[in-house]
Order: sequence, then structure tokens, then C-alpha cells
Amino acid sequence: MVGGGQGAYIGNIHRIAARQDGAWQLVAGAFDVDAARGHAFAAREGLDPARSYDNYKAMIEGELSREDRIDAVAICTPNFTHFPISKAFLEAGFDVICEKPLTATLEDAIALEKLVRDGDRFMGVTYTYSGYPMVHEARHMVATGQLGEIRTVQVEYPLEWMATAIETEGNAQAVWRTDPKKNGRGGSIGDIGTHAYHLAGFVSGLKLECLTADLATFVQGRALDDNAHVMLRYQGGARGLLWSSQVALGSSNGVRLRVFGEKASLSWFQEQPNELVHARLGGRTETIKRGADDLSDAAKARTRTPPGHPEGYLEAFANLYAGFAEAIHAKRERREPTDIGRDIPTAYDGLKGVAFVDAVVDSASAPNPFWMTPVAV
Amino acid sequence: MVGGGQGAYIGNIHRIAARQDGAWQLVAGAFDVDAARGHAFAAREGLDPARSYDNYKAMIEGELSREDRIDAVAICTPNFTHFPISKAFLEAGFDVICEKPLTATLEDAIALEKLVRDGDRFMGVTYTYSGYPMVHEARHMVATGQLGEIRTVQVEYPLEWMATAIETEGNAQAVWRTDPKKNGRGGSIGDIGTHAYHLAGFVSGLKLECLTADLATFVQGRALDDNAHVMLRYQGGARGLLWSSQVALGSSNGVRLRVFGEKASLSWFQEQPNELVHARLGGRTETIKRGADDLSDAAKARTRTPPGHPEGYLEAFANLYAGFAEAIHAKRERREPTDIGRDIPTAYDGLKGVAFVDAVVDSASAPNPFWMTPVAV
Amino acid sequence: MVGGGQGAYIGNIHRIAARQDGAWQLVAGAFDVDAARGHAFAAREGLDPARSYDNYKAMIEGELSREDRIDAVAICTPNFTHFPISKAFLEAGFDVICEKPLTATLEDAIALEKLVRDGDRFMGVTYTYSGYPMVHEARHMVATGQLGEIRTVQVEYPLEWMATAIETEGNAQAVWRTDPKKNGRGGSIGDIGTHAYHLAGFVSGLKLECLTADLATFVQGRALDDNAHVMLRYQGGARGLLWSSQVALGSSNGVRLRVFGEKASLSWFQEQPNELVHARLGGRTETIKRGADDLSDAAKARTRTPPGHPEGYLEAFANLYAGFAEAIHAKRERREPTDIGRDIPTAYDGLKGVAFVDAVVDSASAPNPFWMTPVAV
Amino acid sequence: MVGGGQGAYIGNIHRIAARQDGAWQLVAGAFDVDAARGHAFAAREGLDPARSYDNYKAMIEGELSREDRIDAVAICTPNFTHFPISKAFLEAGFDVICEKPLTATLEDAIALEKLVRDGDRFMGVTYTYSGYPMVHEARHMVATGQLGEIRTVQVEYPLEWMATAIETEGNAQAVWRTDPKKNGRGGSIGDIGTHAYHLAGFVSGLKLECLTADLATFVQGRALDDNAHVMLRYQGGARGLLWSSQVALGSSNGVRLRVFGEKASLSWFQEQPNELVHARLGGRTETIKRGADDLSDAAKARTRTPPGHPEGYLEAFANLYAGFAEAIHAKRERREPTDIGRDIPTAYDGLKGVAFVDAVVDSASAPNPFWMTPVAV
Repeated sequence: MVGGGQGAYIGNIHRIAARQDGAWQLVAGAFDVDAARGHAFAAREGLDPARSYDNYKAMIEGELSREDRIDAVAICTPNFTHFPISKAFLEAGFDVICEKPLTATLEDAIALEKLVRDGDRFMGVTYTYSGYPMVHEARHMVATGQLGEIRTVQVEYPLEWMATAIETEGNAQAVWRTDPKKNGRGGSIGDIGTHAYHLAGFVSGLKLECLTADLATFVQGRALDDNAHVMLRYQGGARGLLWSSQVALGSSNGVRLRVFGEKASLSWFQEQPNELVHARLGGRTETIKRGADDLSDAAKARTRTPPGHPEGYLEAFANLYAGFAEAIHAKRERREPTDIGRDIPTAYDGLKGVAFVDAVVDSASAPNPFWMTPVAV
Repeated sequence: MVGGGQGAYIGNIHRIAARQDGAWQLVAGAFDVDAARGHAFAAREGLDPARSYDNYKAMIEGELSREDRIDAVAICTPNFTHFPISKAFLEAGFDVICEKPLTATLEDAIALEKLVRDGDRFMGVTYTYSGYPMVHEARHMVATGQLGEIRTVQVEYPLEWMATAIETEGNAQAVWRTDPKKNGRGGSIGDIGTHAYHLAGFVSGLKLECLTADLATFVQGRALDDNAHVMLRYQGGARGLLWSSQVALGSSNGVRLRVFGEKASLSWFQEQPNELVHARLGGRTETIKRGADDLSDAAKARTRTPPGHPEGYLEAFANLYAGFAEAIHAKRERREPTDIGRDIPTAYDGLKGVAFVDAVVDSASAPNPFWMTPVAV
Repeated sequence: MVGGGQGAYIGNIHRIAARQDGAWQLVAGAFDVDAARGHAFAAREGLDPARSYDNYKAMIEGELSREDRIDAVAICTPNFTHFPISKAFLEAGFDVICEKPLTATLEDAIALEKLVRDGDRFMGVTYTYSGYPMVHEARHMVATGQLGEIRTVQVEYPLEWMATAIETEGNAQAVWRTDPKKNGRGGSIGDIGTHAYHLAGFVSGLKLECLTADLATFVQGRALDDNAHVMLRYQGGARGLLWSSQVALGSSNGVRLRVFGEKASLSWFQEQPNELVHARLGGRTETIKRGADDLSDAAKARTRTPPGHPEGYLEAFANLYAGFAEAIHAKRERREPTDIGRDIPTAYDGLKGVAFVDAVVDSASAPNPFWMTPVAV
Repeated sequence: MVGGGQGAYIGNIHRIAARQDGAWQLVAGAFDVDAARGHAFAAREGLDPARSYDNYKAMIEGELSREDRIDAVAICTPNFTHFPISKAFLEAGFDVICEKPLTATLEDAIALEKLVRDGDRFMGVTYTYSGYPMVHEARHMVATGQLGEIRTVQVEYPLEWMATAIETEGNAQAVWRTDPKKNGRGGSIGDIGTHAYHLAGFVSGLKLECLTADLATFVQGRALDDNAHVMLRYQGGARGLLWSSQVALGSSNGVRLRVFGEKASLSWFQEQPNELVHARLGGRTETIKRGADDLSDAAKARTRTPPGHPEGYLEAFANLYAGFAEAIHAKRERREPTDIGRDIPTAYDGLKGVAFVDAVVDSASAPNPFWMTPVAV
């Protein structure tokens, strides 16, 4: 693991997720830009001191020199470092698991995705919500035609944690997330809008045709958007509406996806992830429960407990890690992965996310003559 | 009453609502374009046959000739007839209660609103959702600064009833609602998007600056939009997102409004209208219940039962009728109306709605270069 | 109307409900034990002063002397007066609509029910919750075998309004409701437990075999129970559990009924009365919405608006009044009532309620050797 | 681990839970009564074959002979074997983690609890629901007086999985759970009623005074109850109502607890375990979210993710395992455990559960003269 040391929220999540199914073991790391802090952290985690490195370059060198080298590296650093670190590990021959967004700039994303495509390495990107079993069930239902042709997709990801200027009050994560150099061009749209965009495409199977967007910054002095509205047109005629916000009071992690087809609709809410609400044309609205006997293999492969014993975010994250393990094994063994290793987020998904953010920012910053003003308001 | 006879959904709603608080009595009408059907309906309602008229012109003439003439007329006809009928009654000196949208064209709306503004008559427009007590409570909370400055408003009105081509299967209401000549330029945006737009402005107190929109028609052969996405920019910097749909399977009348301010947010859902969800910065999310002792006078004036005994759509509609009665009385008595007669939807609200639809359709039909396509999708 | 004057909560509800469908008109009354206050109230309601009476005896005499006498009387007085007033009106030949409980004592209830049974008058008792359309739908589903044999019924009615000693702080209704002489033997079990008991039997179609109960009084100095737990055994082997409470903080009018059969279950909650949750053996849980096309005639006859436009408590109450009107008309016309006039609560239901309370109090006050104490707690 | 091998639902849950926080490692086991199947399972889990034992006696012998012996054993076998296996491990000097119920008979439970009390070993019992952070928050709120004196507790655990005679259709778990010899005297009351009873006492802090119960068996031919109603009287005057059912269609694992005090109430539902609903006297109902900054240390010690990223059943179970680890460490180090190691379920809680079931069955089987029959039903 690179980054994700002491006090890092997402680093701890990665470790729990990786451990959950017993498929991964944390054996080496460069956990902190402050090397001493990183070593202290490694010691608390019980790592062999020889495998706690000063930085990622030392880690590559050190691990390359060992026979029992790591199987893959997990990169949990701020956005702008994803590119150089991923690139270095990939070029050294390691498989990579990286936080989203893939990179801070579109150029980097294109280059990195090309590196993966042209090479022989696996690169997974942690679009967490696509790890939930009921998200896979929804994708399966769309893919097997149970919704008919998709008409519109409504997706949103509201958060409240940046409703005030916490970046001026010492919140380290907020500091880099509001710095365009470290974070990239998209504020809320980059941080969480990309999750929403990935989820909508993952479930609906739709590819974007074009978009038009409106970005706002409500907290004074903030350099990036903290609220984004995006209208989507998908190839084939379906439409979408996407909202991301970091200032939506009352919203913890309110990822909500609704997909409306000509035959049925589906609704999924991340804070109650074990249920999928299904409404059919001329029929009643029913609740599909995780763990039920009649679900798809894709959902079952990502399920540990029966209906009514809720699984949550850590299990979804663990499903990604289990999927990455299976994908890596399958690649090495030159076979098709089993269900858990299919439909997992890759470098290309990462690229799509960065390209999406770029288009959103371009659209929102263009002088737009098609903003109309009604004659009476 | 004009229109609203046998088989007319909204006519019956108007009658129940008008009767609920005992402020109105139905005494005259021209209920149907088929005069004989109209008379038969009037007979079943127990009206004096002398006051069941062949058409609205006869009704104006007949009522003008009576000393016990009607206090006001309720117009429940298809959109394109709102203008001539309203105009005729207003010019004859009657107060008018009219269904929304005010008219089918912007020109008519401007003319009608001017007629009301320059004259001495009252004209109310039935934006039903503004009759709900918890909507008034929300408006009161915003107006008294409890949310701080408003940042974004998310409003939606999804329906499912036109998910298939019911206009080709003999559904009379669907027939005229999909005919631009009878309905006006806006499909879903005119029918229900206007409700959403009014509700958002009513609660937030914000005035629109400009909008950009995307309309879609998913049911083949339909002449008007059945799904609309609109991004809103309000004066002063607040933003909004509006979705209306007539093809959203699973949605009965899913009017949902969320208002996010710098200090708090509010959420209201029409299918559970007795609750308002209130989340404060740094505080917990709480439920405000209709009927509670600590609500505003505006909410209390519109409340009949204690918390836990739900009121619904008919009571909201009755609140509008009670408000119109009070506004008319106050106008005649040259005094300020009491709470129930304040903040009620008028001709100007009707004009705003028609102007909104016009701007949406113009925006959506413009060749828009700012629809961006990401480099990877 | 007798009682229900100035400041009386339930009197106003009765009037709105009676007016809603246009089937009843308030023309006479003795609204208050304080005759002057009663007359003042009648004047405000616009009644003919000649038909505002000093008391119920004067009302009977006065109305008997008129040709346009009332069709029926609604009795909205405290419990202990239900018996003499109902009896007097019935014996004078009037049809009667009476609040529950039927009477304050079992003896009175038996006598009154016998008077109705042996006579030719109609007597309706306002078990309000049986007026809801989705309650009728539930009853229909059970009656037509869609749940199979019923196994257990869970019903509860928690309230919070008497969580403190409001009867010592001038709350008039709380004063008589906590006075055994005016209220009868049952506190919470009489006030709201009877509603729950009626609802459970109404929907399940089950008849009680026996019960065992535990009553508690949590507010010091209160003479009657404010919390009741009752275990029910129905004829045929089904079981039930009933909870009523006047001290359950957070509960407004939380009537909740769940019926579990061998083939399916149903769940209904009064605060969201437009939905019925239906779970089938081996199937998914679905939501049945009021107003849907595929509901029973019993539900449809009690429905005014389409799905998504919520109806509430006043419409349920209005359904009872419409049903009483139809039942009275049908009786006079010697024909079967239409759907709205069937399955309405009568004097016998009132008697069952009083008998239930009596058995509960007897059970709870008996020295019970079968309360077991575990060896370790 | 003893038991919990191939196909055993709860064994897998124990393993995931134990692994989640890195505090436990599975190193030895006797996983199956069929030793060969057990060894095959151990191989798949990657265990040292030398530590895969034919049975629990061999395991005790084998582990005693090793220096790197296990720290504790987890017992995941059918109920009737809990006693001999736990006893053997305890007497051999091992700490024990055992599934509930503690034993199949009250005599065994008393003996086993005495063995623990008189000895120096730790014994934890997996009352899973007490591992949820919001359950600890609720307990903390009661303990610190935020609810005032407790008045009544409503607790229920409905399940649907035994709604038909699956024990006759080869469901192995259902077979032993319906066999009094292997399961003990309580059917639903033993399997899940004990969870509900423990949860109610854990949160409320109340000790039972006495109870009266009604058991039913709805599935023909079943030897034990599949539905239980219990009225509880707690020491000090509080009351409770408990329902457990294995035949409640639509219920997955619907553990629901509501605690009503004189100052506030709390409501918790296992299928949405990240929320606690809190209603205060004279105040509004608010939602307390897991992960919020203002929660108790007890809740925080059991929390991994921020609000909005749901944790679930596996994390609750992992909290028990982390607590058992801490309790064992603290015991060995002769210090007080930290938060995670406090308020964890022990052998005494196990004994209370078995004693509760015994009292319920005794109460329900007594000839009870205080079942009253109303005069009219």
C-alpha cells in the first residue's frame, strides 16, 4: 500500500476490505509522505520493518529485490500522485489497485490507460458502489432486458461535509480536495460526481453521447465547484440527470440511482443498500432483497449473509478487492475469471471518469447563449 | 363551474375541495361541451335546472341576470379554453378560479394577467401543492431565515400514467394533453413541470434568472415532451434542478422538493405530505409534523387534524378554495386577508408558469454548442 | 349533533366528514352542556336558532315536532353520556351515529345493543379506522383467502399525548378520560385499545376466544391504565398481540396492524394509510396503492383520488358517514346497501368493544399465578 | 473452531467476523461430525493439516500438546452439544466463545455458568445484536438518564424461514432446531426470542421480575413453538412485550426494539441498523446516525465508517469478536478492558437466556384460569 497511513480514512477502509475475504494480506507499504510517521504506522500494523519503505520508489526497488514480492499495490494517495505512482509500479511489472479519480488531469489519464491497455498488467480502480450486490443485480436486470429500453436515469450523490470552509480550518483532506493542482479540475463533480456517473453507466449499460453542465461554488473562497448539475444525453436517445454536492446539509453519502425503462424501473439508495425497488408497467412496486434465492449469479457471488442481516459499505469494498484478486489470478492463469472477478472497475473506467469531469468543466465554463430567461419570473 | 362534468377527474376534486370547509356551494354550471350531458350531470348534482347552462357564454348571461348570482366561477376545462372563458367571466365582472396552466400560449397569459392586474377582479390559479400546510411551513422557515441563504433547490414531479401511448387508446385527457393546439407547447413540462417550478419558487422565495433545458419524447408518435430536465439559475446565485416526467414507471404523483441552505435543509414529499424533514448544520435530522404546536400561523391556518391523523390532497385543495374565498371576501371588504387568504396562487403565478414553459421549450429546441462530448465514454 | 361544540376536537371532525361527500347537512344540535355556549356555537355554524337546543332532551322534543326533522343524530359527548342520549334518541325513533366506546359500562352496552337489535333503528359507531379504503382492501384479501389461514395478528395503537399528568393541568378531555365514572373501566385500553381490537377483528375476520392482559399506569395519580398489553387467542387457533399506550413518546396516532397468514401477510400503518404492504410465501414484498385499478369494490367505493394523491383521516371518517347514510337509506328503502354501506361499524361492534375492555380489566386485575419468574434475570 | 464447517451458515459468519479487525486468526478446528468432511474443509481454509482434528476431544488434546496453542475456541455446533464441548474446553484451560443459546437445558446452563464463575476462564456468548454500535448508543442513552425512567419496552424478532415444514424437506438446520432433544424446550422463543430478550435487557438495563407467555405451533407436526407472545414485568415497574416468530411471512430478520421512557423514546431496527430514532417529550423526532461526532465512546469504539456508509451485521459480529479478544487480553494482563471489551455478552447472559426460555415454556404450558373470554366477540 502506498499512502493510507495514520489518520487516513480511506486507507483503513482499503485494509479492512482487503482482509475481509482472506484473499489479501498487507505485507509492505510506504504509508506516509513523512517517512518516520509511515514507519511508525507500519510497526503498529505489525509489518516486517524491512518492508516499510520511505517512499514509493524505495518500495518498488525493495519489493523487486524480493522473491516474496507483493502481488499488487494499493494506491491511496491524493489524486495528483495517482499518475506517477501507478505508472512507476506498472512499469516495474506490478499489478495496481488505485483510488479514483484515476489521475488529476485528462492527459495523465489517457497516458495511464494506454499504458495499461498496451501492457500486461492489471489495474483496478475503486469505484466502490459498483461492488454492492444489489447494484450488480440492477445491472443484470437491465442487461437481460427486464426494464426494456432505458429512457432516463436519475443519479445523485449529495454530501454535507464541505458545507462550510473546513479547508481553512485544518481539515487535511479538504485542503487538497479544494486545490486544483492536487485534486484536478472537478470539485464535487470530481470527488463524487464521478462515482455517480460510473454507477449510472454501470447499471444502465448506456454510453454517454454528450452533456451540458452547471457548476457552482457556494462556499466563499473555494477554488473548485462544490455543487454540480449535469444533463446527460446517452447514445441511443436515453437521457440522464446528475447532481453532486458537497454542501447538501443532511446528506451523509446519499448516493441514489433510479433507472426508468419502458417496461420497469429500478431504484437503489446506498444508505439502504440491501434493497432494490422494482416497479413494473401495470404492476406493483416490489422490493428485491439482497440474499434472496432468485437473484443473479453476479449478485450471489457478492453476498455473504441472508436477507435481513444487512451487509454494507465494507462488504461492497471487499467485493472489489475479492474481484481484483480473482481478476489477477485469472489473468496469470490465462482463464476467464469467475463471477466475482467480472464487471469490475478498470483503468478504462478511470479514464472515462476523468474525461467526464473534463467535459463537465468545459461545458460549465463556456459562454452559453442557450440559458433562457422567461419573460416573467 | 365551467367544465368538470361527468367523468372529469379534476372537476370532482374541485367540488369536494370547495365543499370541505363550507365556504363554497355549487349553484350553477356549464359542465360539458355536450350540453345535454352537462344538464344531466347538473341534475345528478341537484342543481336548479335554470342554472345549468348550455355553455359558458349562456352562463355569464344567465348569472348576470340574477340577483343571487355566483360569487366566482371555477374553470376546469382543457388548457386552450382557459383564456377565452376566463377573459369573458372577468370582463363580465366575475371573480375567477382557474386550473393551471393559466393559458395555452404565452401571449394569452400576458394578456390575461394584464386584464387581472388592470382590473378589479380576483383570479386564483390552482397550484395545488401550495395548499399543503407543510409547504407553507417550509416557506415560512425559509422566509424567516432558518435555512440561511439558499444554495440549491432540487424539485421533481415524476408520473407514470403516460408511459405508453394511451392517447391512441381512447384516454380523453391524454388526447388533448398531447395535442399542442389544445395543451400548449409543453408536454410533461407544462402539465406537471409547472407545478414543480411553482412549488420551488413558492417555498424558496427565489426568482429565476435563467434556465437551460433538455426535453425528450420517449413514447413514439407523441407530439410533445414526456420527460424534461431543466437546470435553473436563480437571481442571487442559487441553483436548481428540475425533473418532470410522464413516463416514470413506479411514480404515482411523486412531487418531491428539497431546499438546501447554508444553515439547514428541508425535504418534502407529496405522497407523505404531513412531514417535513429538517437537517441543520452540525445538528441532527428531525421530522416536523403537521399539527404540532410550534408551527407557523400559515401552517396552522391550513390544518384540521392533530399530528398522526393524516391530511392529504383534498385538504390541500380545500385550503386553496378556502384561501380564494377569504381573498375575495377581503377584497370586497377592503381589508387584509387572514392567514388562509395569504400566499395563494394568482394570475401572476399563472403567467410565470406559462413563461417558464416557453423558455424551457425555446432552450431545448435551440442548437446548443455547449453540449460537450467526453473523449472517452 | 349532540356535543361537539366550541373547542371539541372530535365534533369538528364529524362535521367535516359528514359534509365531505354532500350526503349530510348539519341542521340542528345541542352542542354544549353550557346551553349559552352551545347556542353561540350554533350561530357561528349558521344554524337556524330554532334548532339550537338547550340539551338533548329539548332537541328530541323539538325535532319530533318538526316535519323536516333530522335524519339522524351524531353523538360526540363523553363516554358515560353515550348510553342515555343514544337510548333516548333511539326510543324517540331517530337513527343514531355514536362515538366509541358505545357506553361506559358493559351493562349499558348490553342494554343498548339489545335495544338496537330488537328495534328498527340504525345505530352506527365511529370506529374510524375501518373507514380507510386500504383497510377494506386488507379485509377483502383475507376474506377471499389470499392470506390463507390466519396465524397471528399484531396490532398496536400508541399515543404520546398523556405522557405527563395533563389531566391536572386543565386539559378537559384528559380530565374525563382519566375519570372511571365518566370514561369507563379502561384507560388506554378503552380509548384506543378498542380501536386496535376492532381493526384486528375487522380485517382478520377472526372472533376472539379469550385473552390475558397486563395493565399499567405510569403517570402517578392517574386512576386508569395508560398502557396495556394483551395476548389474544382467536377461535380456530390464531393468536394476537395488542398494545395500546397513551404514554409512548414519539407516537402521534401510530395505529399499526399486521396480519400473518399461511400464504401471505399484510401490514398497514395509519400514518401512511394509502399503502398496504403485502408479502407472499416465496414471493417478494409488494406495495398495494390506494386508487389502483385492481383493488376490490369495497376499496374503490371509498376512494376519491388516484394513487399518489394521498387521502387521509378525514376521508376515512367521511367514508363512515357516507356509509351510514347509505345504510340508513337502504334500510328505509328495504334494499341491500351498496358497497359504501356495507361492512360498517354498528352497535354490535360497539358492544364487542366494551366487552373486550371489561375482559381485559378483569384479566389484568386477577391474582395471576402463571406469571413466572426465571431462575436468573 | 468446533463445528461451522462446509455449508454451515453461522460458521462462515464467525470466521468473517473474527478476521475483520485482524484480532483473530483461524489456526485449528474440528469442523464436522464427519471427520473426513471436516478435514477437507480445513484444507480449503488453508489450515495446517496437523491442526484439523477428528473431533473436539482430539482438538483439546492436540492443542494442549502445542506451545502455539489456540487462544480461544469458537463453538458453532447445534445447541445440545454446547454444554459438553464448552465444559471440556473450559476445564482444559481454554477460553471459549459459544453460540447462543448457552445450552439446551436449564440444568446445563446453571452448571456451565457456575463453572465459568468459579474458574478463571473467559466465556463469551454471541448475542449478535448487542454488537451493533447504535445498540450501544441506545444503552448509553438509557444508562445516562436521557430517557428518564423506563416505562415500557416493545421488542420483536419475526422471521419467515420456517413458515412451512422445511424440516421435513431436508433443511438440516431446521431438523435439529425443531427437535426438542437437540434444540432445547423453546422453538422460536429459544432460537430468536432469546435474542430479543437479551437485546431488551441490554439496552434498557432492566431486570425481569416475571412473565406470562403464550406459545403456538402453526406448522403441523412441528414439535416446538414457532410463534411466541410474552408479556414482561420488569423489576421496578416497567413493562415489556415480546414477540418472536419463525412463520411471519415478509420478515427476514426483523429485530425491532422500542424503549419508552418518561423523557424520551428510542427505536432501533436491525435491517436499518445505522440509525436510532429518538423522540423527546415536547420535542421533535430526530435520527441519530452511526458515525456522528457526538456519540458515546461505546458506539465510537464499534464504528469503522463515517455516517452514510452503512455498516451491517458482519461488523456487529466483528465487534463481538474484537470485544472478546480485548476482554481476554485484559483478563490475562489483569487490567480493565477498553471500550470495545466492555458490555459484551458472557456466560451469565447465556444463562439468563436459557432461564427465560424455561420460564416462558412453563408459563405457556400451565393451565391458566386468567384467560378471560369477553361476553361478546
